[in-house]
Amino acid sequence: MKFKWYCLLALLIPSALSSQAVGEEINVADHGVLPGEDATYPLLRLIQSVEGESNITLVFPKGTYRFAPDNALEQFRAVTNHDNSLKRMGFPLFGFQNITIDGGGSTFLYHGRISPIVIESCTGATLKNFSIDWDHPFHSELAVVENNEDDDTFTVEVDRDRYPYTIKHGEVLFERDGWSDPFGSNIVFDPKTQSPIYDTKKYGVNYSKPVKVTAVGKNRIRFNANGRALPPVGSVLITYGVNPTSRLCPAIHIANSSDIRVENVTVYAAGGMALIAERTENVTLERMVVTSTSDRLVATRADATHFVGCRGTVKLENCLFEHMLDDGINVHGAYVKIEEYLGNNRFIGAISHPQQWGLMFAAPGDRVAILSRETVLPFHQTSVEEVEVLNEERFVVTVLDVPDDLPAGPLSMENLTWYPDVVMKHNTIRQNRARAALITTKGKVLIDSNYFSSQMHGILIEGDNKKWYESGGVQDVTISNNVFDNIGFEGGAVYPLLASPLLTDEQRMGEGHFHRNIRFLNNTIRSFNGLVAQTRSVSGLTIAGNAVEFSSDYPANSEFPSIDLHYCDDVQIVDNTATGFDHALTIAQSADSTDVEIADNVGFQAESK
Amino acid sequence: MKFKWYCLLALLIPSALSSQAVGEEINVADHGVLPGEDATYPLLRLIQSVEGESNITLVFPKGTYRFAPDNALEQFRAVTNHDNSLKRMGFPLFGFQNITIDGGGSTFLYHGRISPIVIESCTGATLKNFSIDWDHPFHSELAVVENNEDDDTFTVEVDRDRYPYTIKHGEVLFERDGWSDPFGSNIVFDPKTQSPIYDTKKYGVNYSKPVKVTAVGKNRIRFNANGRALPPVGSVLITYGVNPTSRLCPAIHIANSSDIRVENVTVYAAGGMALIAERTENVTLERMVVTSTSDRLVATRADATHFVGCRGTVKLENCLFEHMLDDGINVHGAYVKIEEYLGNNRFIGAISHPQQWGLMFAAPGDRVAILSRETVLPFHQTSVEEVEVLNEERFVVTVLDVPDDLPAGPLSMENLTWYPDVVMKHNTIRQNRARAALITTKGKVLIDSNYFSSQMHGILIEGDNKKWYESGGVQDVTISNNVFDNIGFEGGAVYPLLASPLLTDEQRMGEGHFHRNIRFLNNTIRSFNGLVAQTRSVSGLTIAGNAVEFSSDYPANSEFPSIDLHYCDDVQIVDNTATGFDHALTIAQSADSTDVEIADNVGFQAESK
Repeated sequence: MKFKWYCLLALLIPSALSSQAVGEEINVADHGVLPGEDATYPLLRLIQSVEGESNITLVFPKGTYRFAPDNALEQFRAVTNHDNSLKRMGFPLFGFQNITIDGGGSTFLYHGRISPIVIESCTGATLKNFSIDWDHPFHSELAVVENNEDDDTFTVEVDRDRYPYTIKHGEVLFERDGWSDPFGSNIVFDPKTQSPIYDTKKYGVNYSKPVKVTAVGKNRIRFNANGRALPPVGSVLITYGVNPTSRLCPAIHIANSSDIRVENVTVYAAGGMALIAERTENVTLERMVVTSTSDRLVATRADATHFVGCRGTVKLENCLFEHMLDDGINVHGAYVKIEEYLGNNRFIGAISHPQQWGLMFAAPGDRVAILSRETVLPFHQTSVEEVEVLNEERFVVTVLDVPDDLPAGPLSMENLTWYPDVVMKHNTIRQNRARAALITTKGKVLIDSNYFSSQMHGILIEGDNKKWYESGGVQDVTISNNVFDNIGFEGGAVYPLLASPLLTDEQRMGEGHFHRNIRFLNNTIRSFNGLVAQTRSVSGLTIAGNAVEFSSDYPANSEFPSIDLHYCDDVQIVDNTATGFDHALTIAQSADSTDVEIADNVGFQAESK
Repeated sequence: MKFKWYCLLALLIPSALSSQAVGEEINVADHGVLPGEDATYPLLRLIQSVEGESNITLVFPKGTYRFAPDNALEQFRAVTNHDNSLKRMGFPLFGFQNITIDGGGSTFLYHGRISPIVIESCTGATLKNFSIDWDHPFHSELAVVENNEDDDTFTVEVDRDRYPYTIKHGEVLFERDGWSDPFGSNIVFDPKTQSPIYDTKKYGVNYSKPVKVTAVGKNRIRFNANGRALPPVGSVLITYGVNPTSRLCPAIHIANSSDIRVENVTVYAAGGMALIAERTENVTLERMVVTSTSDRLVATRADATHFVGCRGTVKLENCLFEHMLDDGINVHGAYVKIEEYLGNNRFIGAISHPQQWGLMFAAPGDRVAILSRETVLPFHQTSVEEVEVLNEERFVVTVLDVPDDLPAGPLSMENLTWYPDVVMKHNTIRQNRARAALITTKGKVLIDSNYFSSQMHGILIEGDNKKWYESGGVQDVTISNNVFDNIGFEGGAVYPLLASPLLTDEQRMGEGHFHRNIRFLNNTIRSFNGLVAQTRSVSGLTIAGNAVEFSSDYPANSEFPSIDLHYCDDVQIVDNTATGFDHALTIAQSADSTDVEIADNVGFQAESK
């Protein structure tokens, strides 16, 4: 049974909601979508039956709904920063206008290789009030129960019901639901902190060569440390697959859409990221949670959230991201390679990174910059007339004009139209592998009143045209009133704020600066290493009003400058205070930094330039 | 420059040609498609520029045209009996009416993973006067230069320019153009016969476990025989990849089309079959050649030709197929599984064999049979109303009616509309791994005046609902006036004609017979083992007028009956002669064979029933 309701009070409701307020509410139970049963095919039938309709809400009575790949709709899909493949989909939401999935507090429980939610070419979609989990996650948790310096081995104990495995030809295979993963990417977690163990990179197992193991009793496996440090007894070795099959199933994939809202949605696992959005305008995440279930240490195989080539505003408020095996959020564009100039303003372009293959780089009307791949600085702007996709990697792009003296050197292109503003407020990102936030966008960025406690850099403003090809020298970033708690417990020169393009040996700083206008204001930094910021090629940098407090949670380290400037211009470092350290924190600057003001800092000491 | 010509003599030309006689001839050189250069993108532009036009001929001035995957158009494609994937295509011929590719004697030389020719949804297409080759083939040829009984090893010498390899962690990787193949499927060839060596299955290397090798000098590799016989010095070990990446690139793929003609086309290599056609009506191959180049022993990685779910007539005349690593021709349908009855005449079906995933099983209007998966005999016929594809494997099919008493047991479905007639005349199939011809179709079949010399069965009329799921119990087959030369040099009970469904232990013969009306007439059989035919579950079988002549080319073998009948009915075995054997050839029949006439055979002896 469907019923339509017409909201007479629409005028009283804020306008952002009103477009979805008049619509049809469908109780999925009326269409055979029932808790405890395989909901995949009945839900597909229901979704197909409302194709082309607008302002639909699918309401799930609270329960646990099961989804399996067997009868799921499938499509070959490129998902940026994931592994492209035929994807079977739980919610294939294609081309809807204002569709809402209201889980009513339900759990959507997936089995095997399936992509829970795909939002493709939708104008207005809201996901709310549900959680996404898998019966068996995409990683294995191996408790370290013995280690032995004498023979350089350690032994893990495995709950074989939850993490089944076989040992074949001396190598361990983790049996998933329809495939098996060899021992691959791995990291040691500390159950006491529910985080990567301090200095985790010294542990782990090198899997670039075959990892030979020995069965020890019915549920124990002995590893050779292969020259790495032996993980402590009580720690947990996490292994999570190999390229290119470790990122096949993101929980939520959003592409070519606009006005997407995710509200009160929890993701407990994913064979990839919890949420990946590409070429989408306006995404709001409100009370989105990524965390592990109580019986697992780890949540998703990859990032909590990731935004590539989006525009409008990416807004995250009151979210909690923890226990994932990669960054909390990453916002960037893509540098694509120019392979060949065909004449007549036509280029053969190539998506640079294999995990971005299939990305829609540009469409007619987009503004693009042509840039040197040596300096990574643009020299020409134009707009796109036509794009012909040849294959996952390559396309032919026709632009309005090219300079008369097109340089012969290696060139790239960057889409200037698709960079979003970013607002992050009152979020917590912690206890994960890697960074809290990576931000490279030319839009306006406000990161205010968040809590960050990441193993690697807190906020990484990078941009590179060499490895990940993540574009977006920033223009206007404010990072204020946040708490950075024990950032960098992987050890080393790891900063709450690192702002620097990543250059190859063949690449060099050009005449200009890569990043502009970064303000790091009034943050509280609880720190075992006293580090605040390292910056390079930034013009317009303010580090002011921050309070750094010593923390004894991890081993103290005074090896690196607290604030470390390289080739920066127009810098103010003022009114910062450091307390509780047994030494003054160092402010260093390179000889090619210019117009640097350092004043009124307490507990800091500026090195002579 | 294009010019149009209007053929005033169209009425004088046979009607099959006339539809293509009025049309436009395009010299590809006028569109930048030039010998010696990468033709891929210029040809794509040309093909796209004539999209939607009819009666087009693309004329290639004689030369060697190069094709590479870099700038090739790509599509995710399911290719039956191959490995589905994103395919980059040399000639993406989609939706044309009467298109002709006239190579003018050219060589189309491919590089890497690319599908040379794809004919999809075309009505009328002719390929003629060219050859297809790759700069580097999809297999490696390893000359056996030493063997050593003492340590059970043999050593191969490799031309590293042609078959580059690396040895990593004690295993050999063959470097292809963009990927590497581990040591996988393998077979030993005898360069003297240009064929698989006699009894080849006793050699080869078991690769179900890691194959450890030793580098011996700069271009030699030592293998352990792992319990197999040591291949003789002078033989050549062929290795050709592993599942599911060994069949990505068929040379010619034809799908959902009609009236396709391939004439004077030679295929020297392919990462799969030379020609695979599915759901296509009327395919004619005239002087198609599959062979190896003079510096290789082996041609394609898989069959020369293969036809799945076709109709009309499959006609092969004056073709030569040799040196391929699988069958010469295979014609069949597909048994699909019924997974679930949804009610209302709707079933969830599943393509049974993974290498058939993506096959279009049926479309509205097709007649289908529902059958028991135990007896493999049909019990109901109906027609298809609707098909909804869920994913590569599964679909929902709605039929007109189902029996009131639908059995609960395991059921299958078979498409009765899409079985072709087959005409094979004056073809040669020889010196290949596996069979000459597999024929399971309900259409009329004439195999006349061909030369067959295959390592396994000559003509295999099988059908199975257990392993390959190849459907099509035959109705009318005539095999006449052919030469079968030294068939079965793999050794064992291998016959010029084997007609028998393949049943699992759980499957059983039903009330009826699976195959009907097979006539094996006036063939000449040069034979080292005296074998003629083994048949099972055939009603209406004539073996008459055949001459079996002893051949000393391979070791004589009198172990098996020359004619071996199991559960056959209405059989005539008459007027056959055997000469040159030192014993009478045996005719055996099972107790459940009925109505068997054995008369006027010379050199044969019927065993008592």
